[in-house]
Amino acid sequence: MLSDPALSALGALFGDRLSVSPAVLVEHAQSESLVTAGQPDAVVFPRTTAEVAALAAWSTTHRVPLIGWGAGTSLEGHALALTGGVAVNFRDMAAVLEVRAEDRLVRVQPGITREALNHELRTTGLMFPVDPGANASIGGMAATRASGTTAVRYGTMRDNVRGLEVVLAGGEVIRTGTAAPKSAAGYDLTALFVGSEGTLGLMTELTLKLHGQPEAVMTAVAAFPSVGSAVDCVIATMQMGLTPARIEFLDTDTVAACNAYSRLALPLAPQLLVEFHGHPEGLAEDVRRFRDLADAFGAKDLDWAEKQEDRTRLWAARHAAYWAILASRPGAKAVVTDVCVPISALAQAVEETRADIAASGIPGPILGHVGDGNFHAILLVDPSRPDEAAVAKALAQRMAERSLRLGGTITGEHGVGFGKLGLMAAEHGAGWQVMGALKAALDPLNLMNPGKLVPGQP
Amino acid sequence: MLSDPALSALGALFGDRLSVSPAVLVEHAQSESLVTAGQPDAVVFPRTTAEVAALAAWSTTHRVPLIGWGAGTSLEGHALALTGGVAVNFRDMAAVLEVRAEDRLVRVQPGITREALNHELRTTGLMFPVDPGANASIGGMAATRASGTTAVRYGTMRDNVRGLEVVLAGGEVIRTGTAAPKSAAGYDLTALFVGSEGTLGLMTELTLKLHGQPEAVMTAVAAFPSVGSAVDCVIATMQMGLTPARIEFLDTDTVAACNAYSRLALPLAPQLLVEFHGHPEGLAEDVRRFRDLADAFGAKDLDWAEKQEDRTRLWAARHAAYWAILASRPGAKAVVTDVCVPISALAQAVEETRADIAASGIPGPILGHVGDGNFHAILLVDPSRPDEAAVAKALAQRMAERSLRLGGTITGEHGVGFGKLGLMAAEHGAGWQVMGALKAALDPLNLMNPGKLVPGQP
Repeated sequence: MLSDPALSALGALFGDRLSVSPAVLVEHAQSESLVTAGQPDAVVFPRTTAEVAALAAWSTTHRVPLIGWGAGTSLEGHALALTGGVAVNFRDMAAVLEVRAEDRLVRVQPGITREALNHELRTTGLMFPVDPGANASIGGMAATRASGTTAVRYGTMRDNVRGLEVVLAGGEVIRTGTAAPKSAAGYDLTALFVGSEGTLGLMTELTLKLHGQPEAVMTAVAAFPSVGSAVDCVIATMQMGLTPARIEFLDTDTVAACNAYSRLALPLAPQLLVEFHGHPEGLAEDVRRFRDLADAFGAKDLDWAEKQEDRTRLWAARHAAYWAILASRPGAKAVVTDVCVPISALAQAVEETRADIAASGIPGPILGHVGDGNFHAILLVDPSRPDEAAVAKALAQRMAERSLRLGGTITGEHGVGFGKLGLMAAEHGAGWQVMGALKAALDPLNLMNPGKLVPGQP
Repeated sequence: MLSDPALSALGALFGDRLSVSPAVLVEHAQSESLVTAGQPDAVVFPRTTAEVAALAAWSTTHRVPLIGWGAGTSLEGHALALTGGVAVNFRDMAAVLEVRAEDRLVRVQPGITREALNHELRTTGLMFPVDPGANASIGGMAATRASGTTAVRYGTMRDNVRGLEVVLAGGEVIRTGTAAPKSAAGYDLTALFVGSEGTLGLMTELTLKLHGQPEAVMTAVAAFPSVGSAVDCVIATMQMGLTPARIEFLDTDTVAACNAYSRLALPLAPQLLVEFHGHPEGLAEDVRRFRDLADAFGAKDLDWAEKQEDRTRLWAARHAAYWAILASRPGAKAVVTDVCVPISALAQAVEETRADIAASGIPGPILGHVGDGNFHAILLVDPSRPDEAAVAKALAQRMAERSLRLGGTITGEHGVGFGKLGLMAAEHGAGWQVMGALKAALDPLNLMNPGKLVPGQP
């Protein structure tokens, strides 16, 4: 609950862009995942960096937490208000501020979504390739260090954010990075804020690296005799130095769900969905080499989608896989897991996970960005059965522990939020306390997205 | 000066791997640049992480600074003892600990040099491509966020360090990163330590990303009618989406120096030295496209070095350019500058710098990694003439200021040390104070390489 003086000061700053209406508050207590929490005390819709800075000063004066809000698509409760506070909705800060085509850079406000950004860029010959599936906001993607299908070639948000403007706790505004392609001038503050989930400050501007729209694109889908042979084909592809733009794994259950939902007729077997970008001459050789590898690993029905419409259909199906899997068990809710292991351990990780899920009694199709070692099980639970949620939670916990045992991480791309707080010590050991010390240095009153990512939280 | 109890406790830890001999101390007060400072009180040669941890605990107990020492090739005084203390020479921690070929990773100790590492990797089909010119230690390269000729394709140390083991002030040991290709699990501590120049802790182990040795390589050298046309050709090359493995600019003075020193007969004109890596089919098209671009920008004498020996000769000459330029003014010492600007500002930055140097009366050939916007002037001063050193220093200052004005950085790859401390506020504004707060959080007694990188230093 905000005190009267706090509320009235906030009203003075935001006028009718402050809301305490129950419907708006409830909207900002939602998440696409099963992770739930309380609701914010108020929601504001800033338009400028100066307003966000004034808000941070207000937050310090009145000791009220601030929680950034982008598109609401995060999966570990990152944007939920655990202890009340103000949700900072960046809906009205969603502009493209500058396109610098020669430098392949774009400056944007945090609220723009990746689809809106690429729509703005469509005539420039450039694109922003990071694609987590959801039409997330760029600010949210940076805050969670998102990645997705194209990271295997173009990198994650870590690699594609060149600089930031950040409002710190208390209201100071800093700028990180420059328009130069690299720098050795001190601590990499950009990298520190990317993935900090709003716990160190609020991003108000981002400078992103752009990439040329590919001159030519080839997409293929191939069915493999086993999970192991599909994964071994991925390892060989990466080792040969081929650089697919995407290389996605779908297990048989996922293929079945996609066939039903997106009206495809893919063979019911583990599949790789692969795409190459380049100039036509180089691409022809990439395609030839990948075909040879797929043959060597027993692929059947390798099918190159030469036409744009066939490619679009395949990737639309991949992007709809989450909804397809949800639809495969009517009424179910999904617990979406997210681990990332060394490529050498990928087959083992996937196969042990499949066996674990099979023994659990709940459905859990597996799919993932296997060129990166990153995969997800979509665990489907009946919301009326708390025992199923408990089973799913235990499965997710074992997936994360298995990933650590195999040298991997508890989250490849979804982040920590508070859903994965309990696993941070296991991954980082004393390093987690270091994160806490950094947080305390920049946000001593713990007003920036409290309860997330660092230790010692309520 | 170390107190007797401090010295005796240090002796108990390191035995005959502790040295206070004047010759050894003097050796650790040297630098390849004109930046000079005092000397350490002692030098130790640890063999294990446990020894480094014990040293850090000793440092806290006795309030004695620790300064890491790799190959001694840094250029801004990073490894010099400003206020005494102990130089930590990693000569005896230089092993390759593990090669994980399937994961394209290698674990190494910090003291190994990049040449020794690549020698160890030669039969694996893999390589570590980051190449700053000097045969620097990997630990030093990570600490300074080094890059060099190949960063345009393979990235800098920022992109190629996957994880670290770090001994913190006080002696706690943390591990950052995992063997998985990516992670969204909390603050990116790896990125925070890379480029921190030993001010936050001492790296005792590094996990590096490896790349496949290229199947085919093509190198070309091309003379351009002007600096502007050479730079415009670089911009067009990058915009076309060609990804050269290196693309280096040499101005006419540099070409003259290289011709004399390395017995080449390159035309006396601004030159680009470019290399492509790939499979033969893709490469043929890259080469064709680059040739067309070079033609369009007026290149003459475009010369493809098809034979390994010709390529080796060209790149050896490029690597020797620093020595070639030094030799062009017998007895001179070099002030090596290092700025990095947005590609769109590169021609302006180089041309203004050339004019500034020409008006200064001292020689200063220019060369650089222009695909990254990074270039250097090697300012040659007569060590017996302090006025020349002052002129060089003023030129370097103006280069950095020009870089900032054009949206660039004060250092592309050499780092801050204490040579560039005075420029940090201009680049980072309030962000520099944030760096200071992070430093204070992790090293409250200021024992880790004091006097470098952060504000408020002696």
